[in-house]
Amino acid sequence: MRHIDFKDVELKSGFWKTKQEMVSKTTIYSVYSRFVDTGRIDAFKFDWQEGKENKPHIFWDSDVAKWIEGASYILAKKKDKKLEKCIDAIVEQIEKNQCDDGYFNIYFTIVEPEMRFQFRHMHELYCAGHLIEAAIAYYGATKKRKFLDLMIRYADYIYLRFYVKRDCGFTTPGHEEIELALVKLYKVTNDEKYLTLAKYFIDERGGPNDIKEEKYDGVCNQSHLPVVEQEEAVGHSVRAMYLYSGMADVAYLTGDEELKNACKRLFDDVTTKKMYITGGIGSSGCGEAFTVPYDLPNLVSYTETCAAIGLVLFARRMMLLDFDSKYEDVIERVIYNGFLSSTSLDGKSFFYENPLEIIPYLSERDNKNNNGWRSIHFPAKSRSEIFSCSCCPPNIVRLIPSIANYLYSCEGDTIFVHQFMHSSATIDLNGKTVKILQKTSYPNNGKVELTVEGGDCTVAVRVPFWCEKTFETKKGYAYYQVKDGGPLSIDFGMPISFIESNRRVILNCRKYALMRGPVVYCLEGIDNPKPLRDILVDTKSRVRVEKDDLMLLPKLKCKGYIRKMNDDSSLYVKKQSIDEKTDITFIPYYAFANRGEEEMLVWFQTKQ
Amino acid sequence: MRHIDFKDVELKSGFWKTKQEMVSKTTIYSVYSRFVDTGRIDAFKFDWQEGKENKPHIFWDSDVAKWIEGASYILAKKKDKKLEKCIDAIVEQIEKNQCDDGYFNIYFTIVEPEMRFQFRHMHELYCAGHLIEAAIAYYGATKKRKFLDLMIRYADYIYLRFYVKRDCGFTTPGHEEIELALVKLYKVTNDEKYLTLAKYFIDERGGPNDIKEEKYDGVCNQSHLPVVEQEEAVGHSVRAMYLYSGMADVAYLTGDEELKNACKRLFDDVTTKKMYITGGIGSSGCGEAFTVPYDLPNLVSYTETCAAIGLVLFARRMMLLDFDSKYEDVIERVIYNGFLSSTSLDGKSFFYENPLEIIPYLSERDNKNNNGWRSIHFPAKSRSEIFSCSCCPPNIVRLIPSIANYLYSCEGDTIFVHQFMHSSATIDLNGKTVKILQKTSYPNNGKVELTVEGGDCTVAVRVPFWCEKTFETKKGYAYYQVKDGGPLSIDFGMPISFIESNRRVILNCRKYALMRGPVVYCLEGIDNPKPLRDILVDTKSRVRVEKDDLMLLPKLKCKGYIRKMNDDSSLYVKKQSIDEKTDITFIPYYAFANRGEEEMLVWFQTKQ
Repeated sequence: MRHIDFKDVELKSGFWKTKQEMVSKTTIYSVYSRFVDTGRIDAFKFDWQEGKENKPHIFWDSDVAKWIEGASYILAKKKDKKLEKCIDAIVEQIEKNQCDDGYFNIYFTIVEPEMRFQFRHMHELYCAGHLIEAAIAYYGATKKRKFLDLMIRYADYIYLRFYVKRDCGFTTPGHEEIELALVKLYKVTNDEKYLTLAKYFIDERGGPNDIKEEKYDGVCNQSHLPVVEQEEAVGHSVRAMYLYSGMADVAYLTGDEELKNACKRLFDDVTTKKMYITGGIGSSGCGEAFTVPYDLPNLVSYTETCAAIGLVLFARRMMLLDFDSKYEDVIERVIYNGFLSSTSLDGKSFFYENPLEIIPYLSERDNKNNNGWRSIHFPAKSRSEIFSCSCCPPNIVRLIPSIANYLYSCEGDTIFVHQFMHSSATIDLNGKTVKILQKTSYPNNGKVELTVEGGDCTVAVRVPFWCEKTFETKKGYAYYQVKDGGPLSIDFGMPISFIESNRRVILNCRKYALMRGPVVYCLEGIDNPKPLRDILVDTKSRVRVEKDDLMLLPKLKCKGYIRKMNDDSSLYVKKQSIDEKTDITFIPYYAFANRGEEEMLVWFQTKQ
Repeated sequence: MRHIDFKDVELKSGFWKTKQEMVSKTTIYSVYSRFVDTGRIDAFKFDWQEGKENKPHIFWDSDVAKWIEGASYILAKKKDKKLEKCIDAIVEQIEKNQCDDGYFNIYFTIVEPEMRFQFRHMHELYCAGHLIEAAIAYYGATKKRKFLDLMIRYADYIYLRFYVKRDCGFTTPGHEEIELALVKLYKVTNDEKYLTLAKYFIDERGGPNDIKEEKYDGVCNQSHLPVVEQEEAVGHSVRAMYLYSGMADVAYLTGDEELKNACKRLFDDVTTKKMYITGGIGSSGCGEAFTVPYDLPNLVSYTETCAAIGLVLFARRMMLLDFDSKYEDVIERVIYNGFLSSTSLDGKSFFYENPLEIIPYLSERDNKNNNGWRSIHFPAKSRSEIFSCSCCPPNIVRLIPSIANYLYSCEGDTIFVHQFMHSSATIDLNGKTVKILQKTSYPNNGKVELTVEGGDCTVAVRVPFWCEKTFETKKGYAYYQVKDGGPLSIDFGMPISFIESNRRVILNCRKYALMRGPVVYCLEGIDNPKPLRDILVDTKSRVRVEKDDLMLLPKLKCKGYIRKMNDDSSLYVKKQSIDEKTDITFIPYYAFANRGEEEMLVWFQTKQ
């Protein structure tokens, strides 16, 4: 199974094209400006000194690197001199300030130079990984080699220290990411040593030679056990996703079955026991981590944006490694919901956490008592343009411009169609170049028309997990023999469904969610009687679809009930309320919190 | 309005008599043994030295003092030589180790003697208050004056330092309690200076001369504002209750209307916006504190046992100050529910926190990720015999033996009947001594027969808040002219009611609780299909009452529904479950967690 790169795919119009335009016009510059404001860009000048403001933080390199990577994906599609100039200026500083031995890290050069490669938890190799990915992306977009060559030098230095000399303060990174970056570097350079190093970091992880942080138990960064022995997703969810992605990459390239099976187990554990309906993962703010199975609280859901993105990265690699529609189903679930909620409709502000319920007063509960006591952390009620730990915004900037990565793959004479976007793609299929045109306004409706030009072939189309029509499928894909030029029309429908959780998700018992195709809906206070938890949705009432240009996908309207209480002053009364009919409006989950700080609810109650 | 002391009331049989026997036979000795084990008793020898185990803690004096007070209430009713000997031994140590100037505190004598009266937050005056209360109780029970005289010396020293010299490191106590103790001391000695000091501590609190802890903002211990300006209950809930009790005492004795009005406002704020259906208060573990109005989460309800006890103390004082049935209604709500849940049915183990819902797996959620991150604190799932901060067990030991304090008061020729227990009481009414006999098996049923012997009088009987019958009342009390020897029979019924919360309590929206008379019921996993949140109770089904000897009050049984799901493996499925009929068993809330660690639920869903 071979990946088709987004560079070979052109989005034409529709939902994701609109989002890409938002990112290339607004988000990319907005994030850059905030990085300028906060000193992240100037940090590359390496001129910070004690006493000056904006002291470089250990992960600033990665913030800017991810921004460069995202900007490169934009540049890969469309010339943008201003953007290119911004990147070139940073690359110039990197060249100027890279150490003679190839090492590059702002914090550990100008703040604690003597501690280079001594602290496993200080994100050094994580930063390196993102810099390598950025350099590859920029090279891919512009064919300018300078940044790539600088990062090859750095990678060679890391190889020397961690693999050849093994003289660092730790064996494997405390925050995984470099593994998948090294695989990318191997692919772009064909230099085996990068794959060797990636494999080394993965194989040594949790093993007898792995040096762990004293104060951690290894669970937080998946080094509690050798990776092939890991049965359950544990610890920091972003780290887990980056590690598992690297593991899947290595398993794909080496054919290591044990590693592949570990990947399969971990993917299933995440997606069948620890994933929100939105595709969000990592339910706990304590360690930004996975917890016990079925622990998916809605009000305090942590569900970091970067973890959702990481799950997309992992799932795509799993599809290549272990072809099955479940992987691209998860990608679809994430991109339309738990990932997209991260970004405001104007593209300027972001959620770090993506809660599934907001009750505004709850986050105020401990404000007055917080004298060193442990308060419950509630997610922010509105998006911000920047965070002190601002990993998510540039990660968003990486994903949306490269979203077409998730559309296709091929094997032999078969083109696999995984996601549905109005697009055209050029695919090298068994030696011949074919063009596949996808005409659709998905997910406004479920109609997809596919035309292959340049030869006959087999087209395997993922039948989405939410589809209620019957298709004959293998591993969840419907196979069609398609003639050159002959269009193939499919209609998945776009059903509106009430969803329930496995009963082990105790906090969701007797609660229901509404989905339209892949899109999860929510109630927001501005549209509905409050409190939202008081609403009973009438699941038997007709759900009306109402166009909404701002949100791109429609609102849904139906009937429901709200309690009418005669006594509104008592704290407790004998059951007295009667149900009063009310209109209920749902909006796509991703669009919440664009109209002020409000109550929000994904899992609601229904008239029994 | 004059209080009738428990010493003048004799419980004959029934619910509280049984609980009193449990405390006098089991609890009082069990708590003592744990205090011996942990060094709390030996600490009174003042021989701890650096390097030895069981270093005295700043609040150990108060733990033992409360135990002495409780033991004294038992002794007041029945000779118990063993108990008296234990107390005498402690008193002997107190006499031996009291400083020459009258000061008595274990920690600040043997650990940090140079810091006497320097740290406002170190519970020094809190310990003093409890020692004073204990001494008064022991004197009341035995007429032995030694302990009382020692504590009078200490009180005089406190008066000298805090009121005359004003040379301490703070003005008012960081943990209130001494205010109400000083009022008690004034009553027993008739020495005005103790009332003066109590009033001084209350008047100065939050004022311009009040010296606060640097790291606190005054909210946590109610010194953010002068007490008469306080509109809302804030901060540490136990401290609040002790302060408000002292305020009510002073207002009662001085006739200070401004202070009385503050007490009324604060009581109403607590009981109409911040009180669980169980009478539990202080919903947040962050600061053991009150939070914003209507924030009453069930899973993480802190609801400390001592706070419930404090609310009883406050409410009783308010009844004397501002006669209204709402005060004794709150007492009834607390004693049968959020207070009584604290103690196991065998009387040996205790809850510090009294949650309204338990989902066992949730408390495990962050166990593996707790690397210095902030995890959510969940209440314990089972009771303990001792805590490192063991304020609650001896507080329970104070309340149950003196529960008859809450039965009666009188004014002119009227006897007020506030609570219902099978008992006889001797009351000095307008110069003549009358005896009031109360015959009842309340709250097994709602029948109460009252007989007054020794003269005609007016009897005013509280009509409980849950009563569904119509009585002619003033301030919630029904008035009867009773002839000498003529029995008065009342039947309140004992209705079973489904209760709903004010809709502002968002977490309880569309949830219902079951009460039988004053007793709140709950579902426990051992009796019912799980998860409990999956149950829909059929509120239209007949609720059967089933006797239970262990729990003393009956179980309640009715019909309900559980989801039947065909797909039990998927995390999310299209709504498919159908309701299956099931039997539902409720037990009195106070009896939960006596049969293992289990799911528990007070607020359930119902068939709509």
